[in-house]
Amino acid sequence: MARSQTAKAGGQGALDALSRRFGERLTTVDSERQRHGVDESYHEPMPPDAVLWPESTDEVSAAVEICARTSTPVVAYGAGTSLEGHVAALRGGICIDMTRMNRIIAVRPEDLDVTVEAGVTRRQLNDKLQPQGFFFPVDPGADATLGGMAATRAAGTTTIRYGSMRDNVLGLTVVLADGQVIHTGGRARKSSAGYDLTRLFVGSEGTLGIITELILRIQGTPEGMTAAVCAFPSIEAAVTCVVRAIQLGVPMARAEFLDERWLAAVNQRSGLDYAIAPTVFFEFHGSQAGVVEQAEEVGGIASELGGTDFQWAMKQEDRSRLWQARHEAHYAALATRPGSRALLTDVCVPLSRLAECIVKTREDIDASFVTGMMLGHVGDGNFHVSFVLDPESSEELEEARRLNRVLVQRALDMGGTCTGEHGIGYGKGEFLEAEHGAAVEVMRSIKRALDPNSILNPGKITEAVPRD
Amino acid sequence: MARSQTAKAGGQGALDALSRRFGERLTTVDSERQRHGVDESYHEPMPPDAVLWPESTDEVSAAVEICARTSTPVVAYGAGTSLEGHVAALRGGICIDMTRMNRIIAVRPEDLDVTVEAGVTRRQLNDKLQPQGFFFPVDPGADATLGGMAATRAAGTTTIRYGSMRDNVLGLTVVLADGQVIHTGGRARKSSAGYDLTRLFVGSEGTLGIITELILRIQGTPEGMTAAVCAFPSIEAAVTCVVRAIQLGVPMARAEFLDERWLAAVNQRSGLDYAIAPTVFFEFHGSQAGVVEQAEEVGGIASELGGTDFQWAMKQEDRSRLWQARHEAHYAALATRPGSRALLTDVCVPLSRLAECIVKTREDIDASFVTGMMLGHVGDGNFHVSFVLDPESSEELEEARRLNRVLVQRALDMGGTCTGEHGIGYGKGEFLEAEHGAAVEVMRSIKRALDPNSILNPGKITEAVPRD
Repeated sequence: MARSQTAKAGGQGALDALSRRFGERLTTVDSERQRHGVDESYHEPMPPDAVLWPESTDEVSAAVEICARTSTPVVAYGAGTSLEGHVAALRGGICIDMTRMNRIIAVRPEDLDVTVEAGVTRRQLNDKLQPQGFFFPVDPGADATLGGMAATRAAGTTTIRYGSMRDNVLGLTVVLADGQVIHTGGRARKSSAGYDLTRLFVGSEGTLGIITELILRIQGTPEGMTAAVCAFPSIEAAVTCVVRAIQLGVPMARAEFLDERWLAAVNQRSGLDYAIAPTVFFEFHGSQAGVVEQAEEVGGIASELGGTDFQWAMKQEDRSRLWQARHEAHYAALATRPGSRALLTDVCVPLSRLAECIVKTREDIDASFVTGMMLGHVGDGNFHVSFVLDPESSEELEEARRLNRVLVQRALDMGGTCTGEHGIGYGKGEFLEAEHGAAVEVMRSIKRALDPNSILNPGKITEAVPRD
Repeated sequence: MARSQTAKAGGQGALDALSRRFGERLTTVDSERQRHGVDESYHEPMPPDAVLWPESTDEVSAAVEICARTSTPVVAYGAGTSLEGHVAALRGGICIDMTRMNRIIAVRPEDLDVTVEAGVTRRQLNDKLQPQGFFFPVDPGADATLGGMAATRAAGTTTIRYGSMRDNVLGLTVVLADGQVIHTGGRARKSSAGYDLTRLFVGSEGTLGIITELILRIQGTPEGMTAAVCAFPSIEAAVTCVVRAIQLGVPMARAEFLDERWLAAVNQRSGLDYAIAPTVFFEFHGSQAGVVEQAEEVGGIASELGGTDFQWAMKQEDRSRLWQARHEAHYAALATRPGSRALLTDVCVPLSRLAECIVKTREDIDASFVTGMMLGHVGDGNFHVSFVLDPESSEELEEARRLNRVLVQRALDMGGTCTGEHGIGYGKGEFLEAEHGAAVEVMRSIKRALDPNSILNPGKITEAVPRD
């Protein structure tokens, strides 16, 4: 029952009131507090004072209202798969675990949309949709909750074709900082009715409100799907192949680059035997004839660039195996060094600069004493370096952070962003001002307008403090 | 040199200061004031006190700064093609005419993006892009400025395939209410770095800031393009054909419904001889084989629904003629009654409710004494009724407004929106609260945070006053 030393005045009052209202669904047990203060990143965890499991929007509203009265911080928690310390309870307070709000409220095939509670995970939704011939396309790899994916403006392997959470959320139910419930957007596929609050809350990382329900667009399962794997003679050739296909308008559904190191890690973890080389995993969606056409067009580009072994996998089970391996890439990287933790970078740059950005980053890695492997959603201009670190070594962590700063500065110099899809959390606070300049003050004034006492996920995004 | 009676205190001070700074590029000539207070809608015009033609972001900044010091309203003006009274200077002040900021600053084919000043029109941009094998897809019909299109979150005939302004703006340069300049977004194709200010300004109708530059995504000209025209035995069959094709995942580039009345008007104006029936104009983009496949698939659906005369137009000149006629539909409607003005509705509903919504609306029109014709971007669930009115008849206007209210309520009951693409301006203020409820208060707090003295396009969106 130990209380975090970061708890603010009034915290006990909130705990008492929440306890009366929610009974055993509020806990201060240490193991739960610890588990809820940590994500999959290298950032310092910070446990909340207590964890609450609400089961409805009304309950979230009631909880936030109690916290608002006592100026108690509130941090929403989904699957805990974020990568910039988003769930760390930097000022203590209540963690609202959304995972019991996991009902799929409505599936409307004829409208190509669904309504879900925020704790539904992307696999849970796809398991429901698949037998009906539909899928939800946004795929960040991890089996995150859809509320969490919206909150971080997640993207992933299929964004090249289907967009990110920005593009696939039609509307939201949000609990505001005073406990009030609002509905943003709606079920129309487009609207010009007032400010786009949906897009404001998407990517706000729980700092402006807590997302409790989502209306999402879904897609019909394509008639034809095929996957391909191609090895390239160099990183530059691999990246250039994808960029050129984008420029030619080939509507690829996925195009995932892995450098030879990450490919080896994936081979190792998933028992695959792909050639150890810079590699791209492709997927094509369309009509039966269309996917063949796309694959042939990309195959032609690949072979001009010296690509070899352009293997097609038409069969569902082969494709599943391929993408399963890709999804586990993060864990495959960690497995190359037992007991390690990873610092994962996330820059995104204009396509014309991508190959150069990746090649220069590789040179930096090679000149350093830390181990880094690279992987990218290269059709979006987005790639990750996974620095696989000894958790006991502050030298390694500092070096990886130095390399990340070099990389972010390079991306910004190229007109890019410090984060394509992971968000700011408190881990990337030091870059926000460098990227957005005076616009950060506009973000701050919105934060102050919607959360004047800063109880919603305090210390994140605009409140994240540069650490150096 | 007559001054509007709505000018606020301090207005003369602003005029003097602006005049010193901008010389003859500031005018109070009556004809210019009148021209800049009116759009293409039926709403009451309201001239500004003066019109200013800035030529750079810095000049817009300087002008707004002067206005801010004197609490003088500022209304940005593009092509004047808005449809809800957006440019009416309801509280007087300065109209900032953006049309001299019409430089295409950069075209980057390899990144599939461009940077333009806000006064560049969509045709001007496309004339520049076309010889290079690219195009900017958002097409509202009118040759609007790109800044204006962003400000109203415009969409149009190709949104079904390429999205609206929401989806195609990567970044903005914006002058804030105090004259400060910020840059939102960037050139990366996706980003999770902080609040999505780009999407907040897109659709804000000049009430949160003045857009002076835009970074836009462009598309490569498809290898194959074909158009088709199909007549249907009923409105319901026509709409159902498009909805079914969407549900089957056919990636149509355009699918425009016209009822037999609007089709007759278009025939008349453009010298065409399409059969007088509910009709859909289609366009397909893709590979050579892909467009044939798409056209055949849609042709099959059409024929199941009794569609006849599925005419293909592969030739560029035939397609141009077809879409030119469609683009002039608004003017074709007006031409059916010389001297008339139009009240144009704009609801958007979930696809499953669209046919019912259109059919019921037609019944309302038929039961009324006013003339209305219908047209729709039906793949988005969006359609327009053009009520062609005698400008001298308040009875006709009141009846059309009554029918519009019935239509909006029907759309909201179906989970739709009062405006798919035209915006709120001051004409749809009465519906904002009905659609968004408590969320409007969040919009208001954002407005107050960014424009505390309400000098930016006052009286619009959240400040629009219900008139009944």
